[in-house]
Amino acid sequence: MQYELYYWPANQGRGEFVRLALEDGHADYRDVARERNGMAAMERMLEARRNAHPPFAPPFLKAGRIVIGQTANILLFLGPRLGLAPAGEAGRLWTHQLQLTIADWLVEIHDTHHPIASSLYYEQQKHEARRRAREFVKNRQPKYLGYFEQVLKSNPKGDRYLVGGRLTYADLSLFQVVAGLNYAFPRAIGRIARHYPRVISLHDRVAERPRIAAYLASKRRIPFNEQGIFRHYPELDVAR
Amino acid sequence: MQYELYYWPANQGRGEFVRLALEDGHADYRDVARERNGMAAMERMLEARRNAHPPFAPPFLKAGRIVIGQTANILLFLGPRLGLAPAGEAGRLWTHQLQLTIADWLVEIHDTHHPIASSLYYEQQKHEARRRAREFVKNRQPKYLGYFEQVLKSNPKGDRYLVGGRLTYADLSLFQVVAGLNYAFPRAIGRIARHYPRVISLHDRVAERPRIAAYLASKRRIPFNEQGIFRHYPELDVAR
Repeated sequence: MQYELYYWPANQGRGEFVRLALEDGHADYRDVARERNGMAAMERMLEARRNAHPPFAPPFLKAGRIVIGQTANILLFLGPRLGLAPAGEAGRLWTHQLQLTIADWLVEIHDTHHPIASSLYYEQQKHEARRRAREFVKNRQPKYLGYFEQVLKSNPKGDRYLVGGRLTYADLSLFQVVAGLNYAFPRAIGRIARHYPRVISLHDRVAERPRIAAYLASKRRIPFNEQGIFRHYPELDVAR
Repeated sequence: MQYELYYWPANQGRGEFVRLALEDGHADYRDVARERNGMAAMERMLEARRNAHPPFAPPFLKAGRIVIGQTANILLFLGPRLGLAPAGEAGRLWTHQLQLTIADWLVEIHDTHHPIASSLYYEQQKHEARRRAREFVKNRQPKYLGYFEQVLKSNPKGDRYLVGGRLTYADLSLFQVVAGLNYAFPRAIGRIARHYPRVISLHDRVAERPRIAAYLASKRRIPFNEQGIFRHYPELDVAR
């Protein structure tokens, strides 16, 4: 089956979590909105009147006749199909739970530069962003990183992957968050990375996977930039 | 099976979405943290060192030997067991997708009163809250309400429920959001409710279900208050 991914073409955003799964899972897929006339195709799909299951927002995935929205939900669907989720129900719920915690983290990362409204420019909420970023770096960042470090440490099958002894989509997503934080908050992350050796190793291990390495070096990987979730604004990259 | 729900005892919060499913589904459950010594029991469960699948935060549900965290994930698990989800995979994914969109909405509702940090008091971010609430009421609120109105309207099985012709956990959750918005933003909601007649009817229909009506009238229902997601601060309840 050829999957069709729909996501804004100018930044990695939430679409990237789906791309990483499709790439590592060696799936046949089109990144529709990046093709010619792709944006128009995406906008048609978003028109709720034409679709019994309209997505609220991109990303969404078309798989045959079904259209699936919400990043974590797409990964819940793709996981077993791409060999990126465990076989049993308990393991699948645990993988999904980790993904939903990553989703919460992403909202907090995004809101460091947009604490008032996504509809306003960064420049219109710079003052508030500074305050929010300071709180994030001080309190929330260590809480999330410490949590995933502990999950790796507590894994009865060893600390190479989050779930059991094999890679899941949650590992790919954690890789992406660490890569993004390194981009957005290099000073803040640089000062605390040594406290989270397992998380950092997982990031490095994922980056070296042959399909991921090939993807990261390709034009399919959109570079980090200041339109996405992870933005590098030096004034927000505060050391604690 | 007797389920054990763990959630902060002083406010409805995210635990309420699970309670509504357990109540409507007539499940045997304990609301552990509201029992004597229950908070200590919850804190032990949160200690990651003791638990191979530690939750990041409440709510979490103990079901026999497994512990499930993240509200939407708990509902994904309970849905089929309590007769609150459709039978097929596509229907379950669609129900879950709606639940995840409700989860996104909840973060935005919460952040109207806490735009800078959950760790700070409202009074410490009142100025920013006013600005964020204004943007929320003007832009985001109509987007979410309009989306769910459209989902009801597009449902090929009629506009009584979000998914197919029967109630799912997503309907219970949408009820809770509307109830919460009526509490938190009575002026803002009062002015726009007429644009979303299907959403309002769904709220009223859920409130009249015998088990839900009995639950809402019981002491098990914690009243809305200013420690939860939905808080009534008159200065944030702006008309557009």
